[in-house]
Amino acid sequence: MLGLVPWDVDRRLQAFLEEDLGFADITTQGLGDLGKNTVKAKVTAKKEGVMAGGYFALRVFTLLNSQTRGEAKVFEGQNFSPGEVLLEIEGPARAILMGERTALNLLQRLCGIATKTQELVKLVEGLPVKVADTRKTSPGLRIFEKYAVRCGGGVNHRLGLYDCALIKDNHIALCGSVKEAIKKIRPALPFTAKIVVECTTLAQVQEALEEKADIIMLDNMSVENIREAVKIAKGKATLEASGDINPTTIRKVAEQGVDIISTGYITHHATWIDMSLKMEENA
Amino acid sequence: MLGLVPWDVDRRLQAFLEEDLGFADITTQGLGDLGKNTVKAKVTAKKEGVMAGGYFALRVFTLLNSQTRGEAKVFEGQNFSPGEVLLEIEGPARAILMGERTALNLLQRLCGIATKTQELVKLVEGLPVKVADTRKTSPGLRIFEKYAVRCGGGVNHRLGLYDCALIKDNHIALCGSVKEAIKKIRPALPFTAKIVVECTTLAQVQEALEEKADIIMLDNMSVENIREAVKIAKGKATLEASGDINPTTIRKVAEQGVDIISTGYITHHATWIDMSLKMEENA
Amino acid sequence: MLGLVPWDVDRRLQAFLEEDLGFADITTQGLGDLGKNTVKAKVTAKKEGVMAGGYFALRVFTLLNSQTRGEAKVFEGQNFSPGEVLLEIEGPARAILMGERTALNLLQRLCGIATKTQELVKLVEGLPVKVADTRKTSPGLRIFEKYAVRCGGGVNHRLGLYDCALIKDNHIALCGSVKEAIKKIRPALPFTAKIVVECTTLAQVQEALEEKADIIMLDNMSVENIREAVKIAKGKATLEASGDINPTTIRKVAEQGVDIISTGYITHHATWIDMSLKMEENA
Amino acid sequence: MLGLVPWDVDRRLQAFLEEDLGFADITTQGLGDLGKNTVKAKVTAKKEGVMAGGYFALRVFTLLNSQTRGEAKVFEGQNFSPGEVLLEIEGPARAILMGERTALNLLQRLCGIATKTQELVKLVEGLPVKVADTRKTSPGLRIFEKYAVRCGGGVNHRLGLYDCALIKDNHIALCGSVKEAIKKIRPALPFTAKIVVECTTLAQVQEALEEKADIIMLDNMSVENIREAVKIAKGKATLEASGDINPTTIRKVAEQGVDIISTGYITHHATWIDMSLKMEENA
Amino acid sequence: MLGLVPWDVDRRLQAFLEEDLGFADITTQGLGDLGKNTVKAKVTAKKEGVMAGGYFALRVFTLLNSQTRGEAKVFEGQNFSPGEVLLEIEGPARAILMGERTALNLLQRLCGIATKTQELVKLVEGLPVKVADTRKTSPGLRIFEKYAVRCGGGVNHRLGLYDCALIKDNHIALCGSVKEAIKKIRPALPFTAKIVVECTTLAQVQEALEEKADIIMLDNMSVENIREAVKIAKGKATLEASGDINPTTIRKVAEQGVDIISTGYITHHATWIDMSLKMEENA
Amino acid sequence: MLGLVPWDVDRRLQAFLEEDLGFADITTQGLGDLGKNTVKAKVTAKKEGVMAGGYFALRVFTLLNSQTRGEAKVFEGQNFSPGEVLLEIEGPARAILMGERTALNLLQRLCGIATKTQELVKLVEGLPVKVADTRKTSPGLRIFEKYAVRCGGGVNHRLGLYDCALIKDNHIALCGSVKEAIKKIRPALPFTAKIVVECTTLAQVQEALEEKADIIMLDNMSVENIREAVKIAKGKATLEASGDINPTTIRKVAEQGVDIISTGYITHHATWIDMSLKMEENA
Repeated sequence: MLGLVPWDVDRRLQAFLEEDLGFADITTQGLGDLGKNTVKAKVTAKKEGVMAGGYFALRVFTLLNSQTRGEAKVFEGQNFSPGEVLLEIEGPARAILMGERTALNLLQRLCGIATKTQELVKLVEGLPVKVADTRKTSPGLRIFEKYAVRCGGGVNHRLGLYDCALIKDNHIALCGSVKEAIKKIRPALPFTAKIVVECTTLAQVQEALEEKADIIMLDNMSVENIREAVKIAKGKATLEASGDINPTTIRKVAEQGVDIISTGYITHHATWIDMSLKMEENA
Repeated sequence: MLGLVPWDVDRRLQAFLEEDLGFADITTQGLGDLGKNTVKAKVTAKKEGVMAGGYFALRVFTLLNSQTRGEAKVFEGQNFSPGEVLLEIEGPARAILMGERTALNLLQRLCGIATKTQELVKLVEGLPVKVADTRKTSPGLRIFEKYAVRCGGGVNHRLGLYDCALIKDNHIALCGSVKEAIKKIRPALPFTAKIVVECTTLAQVQEALEEKADIIMLDNMSVENIREAVKIAKGKATLEASGDINPTTIRKVAEQGVDIISTGYITHHATWIDMSLKMEENA
Repeated sequence: MLGLVPWDVDRRLQAFLEEDLGFADITTQGLGDLGKNTVKAKVTAKKEGVMAGGYFALRVFTLLNSQTRGEAKVFEGQNFSPGEVLLEIEGPARAILMGERTALNLLQRLCGIATKTQELVKLVEGLPVKVADTRKTSPGLRIFEKYAVRCGGGVNHRLGLYDCALIKDNHIALCGSVKEAIKKIRPALPFTAKIVVECTTLAQVQEALEEKADIIMLDNMSVENIREAVKIAKGKATLEASGDINPTTIRKVAEQGVDIISTGYITHHATWIDMSLKMEENA
Repeated sequence: MLGLVPWDVDRRLQAFLEEDLGFADITTQGLGDLGKNTVKAKVTAKKEGVMAGGYFALRVFTLLNSQTRGEAKVFEGQNFSPGEVLLEIEGPARAILMGERTALNLLQRLCGIATKTQELVKLVEGLPVKVADTRKTSPGLRIFEKYAVRCGGGVNHRLGLYDCALIKDNHIALCGSVKEAIKKIRPALPFTAKIVVECTTLAQVQEALEEKADIIMLDNMSVENIREAVKIAKGKATLEASGDINPTTIRKVAEQGVDIISTGYITHHATWIDMSLKMEENA
Repeated sequence: MLGLVPWDVDRRLQAFLEEDLGFADITTQGLGDLGKNTVKAKVTAKKEGVMAGGYFALRVFTLLNSQTRGEAKVFEGQNFSPGEVLLEIEGPARAILMGERTALNLLQRLCGIATKTQELVKLVEGLPVKVADTRKTSPGLRIFEKYAVRCGGGVNHRLGLYDCALIKDNHIALCGSVKEAIKKIRPALPFTAKIVVECTTLAQVQEALEEKADIIMLDNMSVENIREAVKIAKGKATLEASGDINPTTIRKVAEQGVDIISTGYITHHATWIDMSLKMEENA
Repeated sequence: MLGLVPWDVDRRLQAFLEEDLGFADITTQGLGDLGKNTVKAKVTAKKEGVMAGGYFALRVFTLLNSQTRGEAKVFEGQNFSPGEVLLEIEGPARAILMGERTALNLLQRLCGIATKTQELVKLVEGLPVKVADTRKTSPGLRIFEKYAVRCGGGVNHRLGLYDCALIKDNHIALCGSVKEAIKKIRPALPFTAKIVVECTTLAQVQEALEEKADIIMLDNMSVENIREAVKIAKGKATLEASGDINPTTIRKVAEQGVDIISTGYITHHATWIDMSLKMEENA
């Protein structure tokens, strides 16, 4: 998958499987040779949604048995309807039985996030704004969930605390002011890292501009203040709106002219897309 | 926490932190000695809910700096109201800044699950039935999410594929019948493991009883069939209803006399409880 | 191997190899290209015994070099005689030299356990009783040793502290009585877990029955008490006898009608079956 | 413990505990606060033997709860009698209940090895010879078992394939002769590594001497040949006898004047020393 | 250390120690109780240099024995002279003997890098330019070596491939042009990541400016071209010069007005600063 | 590679890659399918040197994509000239882009060490002496750097603290004398381990000989004392000279007749050999 580290992805998927399998699948254990039968299986959507993570779900089965082959019938990022087949898998029954739950748990969650992301993206259609995620992701699943956001048409905010500096209220309080915070933090940063400043007032926006912040996050500002901030700062820094973003509020915020709207809503309010896996013995 | 392995819990929390921190928190890096200041912080609920995972959230900060002390202001499993303080933490600013997001991500998810569980548990109040979880949990978070279900008043189904045998449609198909499946699987099992059989017909229920299944899962059966199955099997095996359980359907199913109702709804339809962490410098 | 997690088994075998190999086999290091020669090797029994773990032994060599091929000449669970060839391996000399000791150490131990198990199983032949293992296994080798018990005709008790509740003397003392212990522990358990109670008196057996324990372990009881317990509880709970079981005592205990006899004797008194590996260069 | 790496030992003990505990001790889970009671416990020998590994057994409990304190009542390497208290532990009931089996499994195995070693060491008393172990140790337990051998009065052979070169029959066959094998292997070795040569004939002993082997292992030689080899090589290389060593044969071999007798008997024929752990609630 | 993850640093230091210690320090093993003596030790410079990594060196000893205390006598980033004491350590002899080599290997390397960095930094004194490192660091030591660069007065370039996009010749070739490469790569990036473009011609610099690259790396350009590029791009993007930077060339390049000069010279041409550790028994 | 453990080498290389890649190569991430193009690449030397580690560099790419094929054009240990092609690689562009820096960082360092080693080896040509390394290696890179020393014509000293006993000044001080130190340490050692004694006086050399040390290290002795020590000890123990060895001093020391000259100079004064990787798209 693009620039991901292949064994790192495998290691994560294996950890998910181990959580479910422990030392063994004791039900499958009793099936004996029967479990070696080659079977076909299909993963079918029960609800509509946006595809995300098919590769990971298929990989789960291959990790359990390298003779398992799979194919995604819907491309990543594409919409699917209820009843549509998403994945086809062919391999030893044992591998499919052992991997089913783990593969679906991941796929249903990721499609849920992609679907929720697309919902918000569509609400700002036609405006020059991107919908971005946050660090509000399920512990241990960040790279998967951020990938799902991209499948849903969103863009990624920083991956973690290590790849971008973000000066928040608590940092500002410790340093005294936005200006002081930027001055203090900048020299210790790699010069390749952007600086984001979380501003709650227009005065802070002004300070951030003066200190050449790369991104100004307008945090929980009123629509009026956002509009004002856009007037002041548009084109001088990337403008990001954040706080209380949901299907009801997003369009209005977007119309004020910010470059980015970031929201935890697309991850922490995403629920799973219902799916099932059905097996049929091989003729 | 009860019988959990202490370093195993720590290792999981550390992995969550590492996902966020990478090699370093580059913003905090620039704070220098300032980051060593001892501060107090409070985690406050913005919505009502059921407490779950306070211990884990506090432990996150202690792992980052052993001088951090914390206290849960609401007991696990108790209800809280918007504005209520859930946790108080005191420690070096740096540890609190570095752990905030990870601690909240976990706590908000777990409280979300406990809250959703309690919602269903209340709907069957007065009936001799338990609400149980499933294996539909976020990959990597199972022991945390199953713990949250207990906080919400639910009970746990098997932890994974290793601690209980569960004969499902695909196993039955591979073996030929419920009877054959039980016969085949039983001798390979530890004699200490229960056998659950997923039945879709009353004939299968009958077979499962004859082969002395410990638990009979009535899978996606109509209310009428559930009632019939209870007549046949009550007291001879534990009766578990499963499939399409949600706030609308659960009471009716419970009234048929099953012992257990298991549902993925309490995990895959749980959303996060909104919370915030506020810091105040120490006087 | 049945329901085991393939990479988990590999990881364990690799850890065993690493213990022996450290950073390198410095003797083989000096052989240079010579070590790439393809050779055949045979593992031959020097004593009679029961086969267990051939798959694991062969896998050791394949892990060292994927071009190594092996075949077990005796099926798992079958008896072999002195001089009988158990395994044939073909592959690069270097892989065989590096894996020899690790493969044999594991195989000799597992065959030793299977052989000792079969010895006890034969002593209760004709009686409706199973010989079960305990948690008295070599640290780090439990899943291998429990597998060997099955090869010898035994059945497995719980795998560890996580897959079955077992209320022992110390738990009873802490809770006050068998009754109190079961009442206290049951609600915290997954409803899919069996409850075993270790009873030393008939009164405790009675209490355990009343509280619907799944399995009653008659711990170090006299033959008379075992007989009495069988009268009281047969058919109402699984009856397991334990304590001071060895070739001299097992038949008498079995004749009292218990369902299971569990004993550490088959693991902690098993010694290794003598074997050798001989190499012959490939023509 | 001497030069061992402290966290490496802990990591190994934790892995042993994890094998038993899985995600949790579900029995202890139900005890709730009761499990926090401080209790005293004693490990008592039921059979006579030689002490080995008390430190490791005590450490198991401390790893589970750092407030656990323990004391060994018998020094490592000392003999104990049936009924003698070996260890005293004081700490939370939960930690003692969770660690009991793992601690005893390790301690019983190590005392078994130390006892078996001492048995052979006593049989060669008065002769200038050392009893040494081999690489025939339980997979995963080598450093523990080799330590137990020292407790029983034995000495250690090489730890693994990495810390000493040992030219065996298969290496000699691949290289053509003892002489060729030594010549080939020596330049690739660290100059700090000794070279052992496994010789089955006196001609090989002669070759090994000419090539300045540090240690000559007389492998499965007759007593007559051992005597002859001692005449030829005594004082020019360390002489080690190996093969078919047991209580019946060891004295005769020792009397021929070899420096070292190495034998797998002390590990693969060691059985566990019977012990029990008893808890008493703290007054 | 600032924003580093404490257990991550410990884990790395432990891995370094394990590489040296293997299963045990066999020399120290023989010292017995002697090794418990508390001793004082001093690390003294034999050559002049810049301090870097004192914290890590001291931590090595504490990891081996938590009762070891240490103090840095020279602050990080400060210059020291031959004969100057850098570190004082007090603790059990065994811990100091076991950690000595690992601690010094790391400290000598890091001081070597800080010293080499300072050498270049001094050569551009008075000019508004920063000296930056590259990804040319010893495998496994990047965060340590980049930290040492900061101690020497340098700044850090990106940490790795994950925290900043850098479009190099090979990417440009694959995409067709600088313009196409930026267009293609930007949408897949987190919007928080800067884009660096490696330009070898002024035309490429122009394209990079048009596509709003954050940083333009002038790669192996002649001094004339660098001067020209500065004229075109100064103030519109960060200008970084790279390629063939060493003590002879750096001043001339700096004088052209670039913002950053990045060079592998400060890491791959750094040699160790000579030091010794001396122990004195405690009175 | 000879007796190395294949997955251990892979794990180390993967760790090096992970350090650079983090969760993903975000630049390559944007290339999409383009990154799958098969390309050829060449690693070319820009300076002369001695080849070491080609296998490891090639393996880096194969780990990233198993379809990558590579070939070393210069054998390990052979000299190469500026402009000479060292490695040819063919595989997906993405794998080559992601592995380039890690592969080169390792290869350049190892060739640097081999080159520096050969420089010293050539200076003692014609004399019966070997140049050996020390434990002064980059933390985490010991087995690679010791391998490079062998490529340069040197021999290896002990790998770490675990495979040879080395009694240093601090040990002698703690024990009282060379004699006491050897007496104390020997019984705790595996009998397969050599004993090295670091002597600074001729009296100590005498003591070491009497106690049958295997290797006598003449530590920082004057040329006169070395000559004297050779007279006393030649042929009775291996004689190793150490301390202040560099291109100016080595010949003189070698001429005194020692068997081994060990020096950290070949590792801590080695700088990288300059190289580049160039890609060409596949026709």
